Amino acid sequence: MFQTFDAPSRSGPIGARLAALRAVLKKAGLSGFVVPHADEYQGEYIPAAAERLAYLTGFTGSAGAAVVLTEEAAVFVDGRYTLQVRDQVDGADFTYEHLVENPPHQWLKSRLKRGDRLGYDPRLMTLAEVRRLEAVAKAAGATLVPVEENPVDAIWHDRPAPPLAAVSLQAEPLAGEAAEAKIDRLRAILGEKDVDAAIIAQTDSIAWTFNIRGGDVPHNPVPLSFAILRREGAPSLYMDGRKLSNAVRDRLAGLADIKEETALAADLGALGASGAKVLIDPNLTPEALARAVSAAGGNLVEGADPVSLPKARKNEAELAGMRRAHRRDGVAMTRFLAWLAATAPSGGLTEIAAAKKLEAFRAETGEEDGQPLLEISFDTISGAGPNGAIVHYRVTEATDRAIEPGQLYLVDSGAQYRDGTTDITRTIAIGAPTAEMRDRFTRVLKGHIALSTARFPKGTTGAQLDTLARLALWQAGLDYDHGTGHGVGVFLQVHEGPARISKAGTVPLEPGMILSNEPGYYKTGAFGIRIENLIIVEPPSEIAGGDRPMHSFETLTLAPIDRSLIEPALMSADEIAWLDAYHARVRATLQPSLESEALEFLIAATQPLLA
Amino acid sequence: MFQTFDAPSRSGPIGARLAALRAVLKKAGLSGFVVPHADEYQGEYIPAAAERLAYLTGFTGSAGAAVVLTEEAAVFVDGRYTLQVRDQVDGADFTYEHLVENPPHQWLKSRLKRGDRLGYDPRLMTLAEVRRLEAVAKAAGATLVPVEENPVDAIWHDRPAPPLAAVSLQAEPLAGEAAEAKIDRLRAILGEKDVDAAIIAQTDSIAWTFNIRGGDVPHNPVPLSFAILRREGAPSLYMDGRKLSNAVRDRLAGLADIKEETALAADLGALGASGAKVLIDPNLTPEALARAVSAAGGNLVEGADPVSLPKARKNEAELAGMRRAHRRDGVAMTRFLAWLAATAPSGGLTEIAAAKKLEAFRAETGEEDGQPLLEISFDTISGAGPNGAIVHYRVTEATDRAIEPGQLYLVDSGAQYRDGTTDITRTIAIGAPTAEMRDRFTRVLKGHIALSTARFPKGTTGAQLDTLARLALWQAGLDYDHGTGHGVGVFLQVHEGPARISKAGTVPLEPGMILSNEPGYYKTGAFGIRIENLIIVEPPSEIAGGDRPMHSFETLTLAPIDRSLIEPALMSADEIAWLDAYHARVRATLQPSLESEALEFLIAATQPLLA
Repeated sequence: MFQTFDAPSRSGPIGARLAALRAVLKKAGLSGFVVPHADEYQGEYIPAAAERLAYLTGFTGSAGAAVVLTEEAAVFVDGRYTLQVRDQVDGADFTYEHLVENPPHQWLKSRLKRGDRLGYDPRLMTLAEVRRLEAVAKAAGATLVPVEENPVDAIWHDRPAPPLAAVSLQAEPLAGEAAEAKIDRLRAILGEKDVDAAIIAQTDSIAWTFNIRGGDVPHNPVPLSFAILRREGAPSLYMDGRKLSNAVRDRLAGLADIKEETALAADLGALGASGAKVLIDPNLTPEALARAVSAAGGNLVEGADPVSLPKARKNEAELAGMRRAHRRDGVAMTRFLAWLAATAPSGGLTEIAAAKKLEAFRAETGEEDGQPLLEISFDTISGAGPNGAIVHYRVTEATDRAIEPGQLYLVDSGAQYRDGTTDITRTIAIGAPTAEMRDRFTRVLKGHIALSTARFPKGTTGAQLDTLARLALWQAGLDYDHGTGHGVGVFLQVHEGPARISKAGTVPLEPGMILSNEPGYYKTGAFGIRIENLIIVEPPSEIAGGDRPMHSFETLTLAPIDRSLIEPALMSADEIAWLDAYHARVRATLQPSLESEALEFLIAATQPLLA
Repeated sequence: MFQTFDAPSRSGPIGARLAALRAVLKKAGLSGFVVPHADEYQGEYIPAAAERLAYLTGFTGSAGAAVVLTEEAAVFVDGRYTLQVRDQVDGADFTYEHLVENPPHQWLKSRLKRGDRLGYDPRLMTLAEVRRLEAVAKAAGATLVPVEENPVDAIWHDRPAPPLAAVSLQAEPLAGEAAEAKIDRLRAILGEKDVDAAIIAQTDSIAWTFNIRGGDVPHNPVPLSFAILRREGAPSLYMDGRKLSNAVRDRLAGLADIKEETALAADLGALGASGAKVLIDPNLTPEALARAVSAAGGNLVEGADPVSLPKARKNEAELAGMRRAHRRDGVAMTRFLAWLAATAPSGGLTEIAAAKKLEAFRAETGEEDGQPLLEISFDTISGAGPNGAIVHYRVTEATDRAIEPGQLYLVDSGAQYRDGTTDITRTIAIGAPTAEMRDRFTRVLKGHIALSTARFPKGTTGAQLDTLARLALWQAGLDYDHGTGHGVGVFLQVHEGPARISKAGTVPLEPGMILSNEPGYYKTGAFGIRIENLIIVEPPSEIAGGDRPMHSFETLTLAPIDRSLIEPALMSADEIAWLDAYHARVRATLQPSLESEALEFLIAATQPLLA
């Protein structure tokens, strides 16, 4: 459900906590300790019980780290949190460092001394992360020490309990494939990779494999858990049994051995002792799990999570669910846009009020298809004027702005329905836009259309397509500092690997993958523009007169794009034809579900550009 | 000079040679031996003395390998040579294998047995290549054995002597920077990389560093040699002293210690014994040289050849030379195109005759600027009709075709002048082209123009731009199976690293880099199309109204593009404007050097598209 907009505040006596932690470290013979913003599952969201960074430093951002040494301590945040960290953390306790430009392993380079013993929690850091730290420690002559118990937990007396949200089954008509069939396919993949077993440490990979969903963290409907897949024999699923109703347990017991998470290390040790080849993804798996296998003599094979690709290639049932979810979501978005068009020009509307209203419209759409809104898929980005130019903006009571005539309003939001996940951005002119706003918006739209209409051969990666979304901006000396698209799950994570459309997108696009198409433009202190639809990769198809079948994209997202922001002189005939056809489809699809003012708005907003 | 068009023929008693080699191997206790098509310098062309593969197998292609085992032997060639290898090599002696799909290390996987001793010449294989073999040998329980003397040489009694072409100095007004200054810059780079020395094994890197040129191999005007660069002290240059006149030797002696190549191993050993950190490029350096350092206790640091990037970023003098060379080359090309237009339609012209005529026109251009043609920069690709569709086509007496009305004629050629290297492809309709030819040509041209006119931010790679050259083809279900562009040297290699415009082009483009822009389309058995100009990466510059400076390209190559092959209805107004402006520039630049029929041709061929 809708996330809080509370202003961050200091959470306690940080100096005393730091002193207490140093005392624990001293007793353990450690000269320092690393505190990442992470839990055991390495997901985008972590439960309250894992907010060790916030407890220790007071910093409540969604990414960061701290390192505590005997005489010195630092908190690391990225560009989004430069101001917030100074507001929340006292510079006398922790120096402020840039998480990307000077990350912990870099910062430690000049500080670790020969003989130092730097502690870390091997359950909270991946194998790849530990290797980076290890290289620095080795170069300095220091030792990296995995701790048995996290020393922050030793001083955190009122630490919240881990979450115990009930696990639900994702029905087969929605999942499109029985869990048994998925497990069989995964077994075959383990065979192709010539491994005996695989550790699955991505919670959405587990949810996909067993056709289950959960609610342990915000926005990502996954149960916190681990799994071992085996080439021969049943998989094991490690999860707190209190999350399972009898009915769910009965279903899962037919698929896997269900065990407590405390049994995982011993099972990995047994696998290792048997000499098994065990596949792990070094970028996703806690080092402690890799260590459990190799310490027992097992043979670690490093490679990508074998579930990632099968999960990313959506089947027909999943695609059908996503289409239904996007139709409902489009109805909600259109009602919101109609309401905004009627309300905003007279002034007085705020970013928070708009975001709440949008969520209320989404909650109403549940009456169609019997699929209510279950949660929003991420904290809504609701930015007016200069706030729209802050790419990772999240409105708070402190930053809440009025949405005023003459401004652009950017709203990036999404929903979790049982049959699909949505993610849409629209940018709306409140009153009359300037010529500059129209020029920029039109160039962003040209990039959006170039990607939407691209045909491309088998094997093409997101990195190869990213340029298409940028060229109209580049030609004018403009650009945006984020990727063009990310993968999206089906009632799973709104950010899903492995494919993406960005300079770093090295995975070939395959039929059934769902990605976002979201080029933008940001003028600091003035306005932000982003146009985002989700798109499905279609199988290669013949083109009349051509030699080779080519992929294409189907656009999932249905909502009007603000025609008042388009400069027709910058658009080619083909681009105008795409826009008009898209709007005609939006109108035809949503019209039956709309009435009165919203219907009038839809009809007006989807007229041909030059009409 | 123009390369031979002799048909390949069997070169001797292959069976006897194979038996003799097996006897040598047996005596040396080896169960097999690997014969790459390579010399010690890993360049694109090798001297006759290094044609061991041809001597042993009879196969004379420009790439390939052989592996001889006790009971079995195989020759490995790529798709270009599938027919030729069957013509030249008896299947009773060697089985035929695909060099790319089943390369030697792959083929050996199922053949190496525990205890086998596989020999290889560590002077002819790079560190990276040896590692691939080593992994296979290790998995099989076999041993990889570096040989002291190549066993092929032991049976090759009439092996040619190594080449001794005279070394010349590249004058500073052409090089644009004194060798002393280059060496100082390279020393600073070694400092930044924190190494004491670097082995330079790319002959064009050596030629660039010392401002020298040579003639030991065809087309690449480099002296075969090695060098060691040192952070402190003079570099060492290893080269047969007989290539040096007194004057050249005197100049080089002021820059480097000049030594025979036989002294290299001992010098590397001394570096190693001193504990020096030595930079080597594992993809370019013979394993023997790496081994000489590490065996003596030295510390190998693997990384890219430190000369590659400085060499690729051309200075103003080099760019000015390239512009002059391209003006002269454009005059020769235009005379050729005028001659072709006058001669070909009446029939009877052949691919070889056309290629020879083109070279003759190039030889004449030397009278301008006092810079004669020194050599062609690669074997001319001169392909009529279906031969044009063979991407790596090299005409021979056996394949020579008449260039006939109704065909497309594709000619890809280049020249080496003292002030620059050229590489240009034009496709010409002989008589009236079909609608299909015009459609395809226009799409290739649209890709060529999209790349030529692209603006892009600092840090953009060739992989990001490659898509622009393909999109107009992709949209029609068409594509081409080669990269879009390669780097080009200045009176050096026509294929120069490290940047390229292709899916694999991961190096950011930098000001002064020269690349080819050569999209194409090939219809097997019918026709081939390619349009190639060289382009220079310009420094980022402001765009009016934009936020960020953007790179652009300057087009170097000057010759008409066949307007009869363009379908104007497929071209945008901006594309037509680019073509007309390019043709106006070609006309204005070349006009003063042309006369009579060639001048008339130029004026007609460079008229506006819609005139």
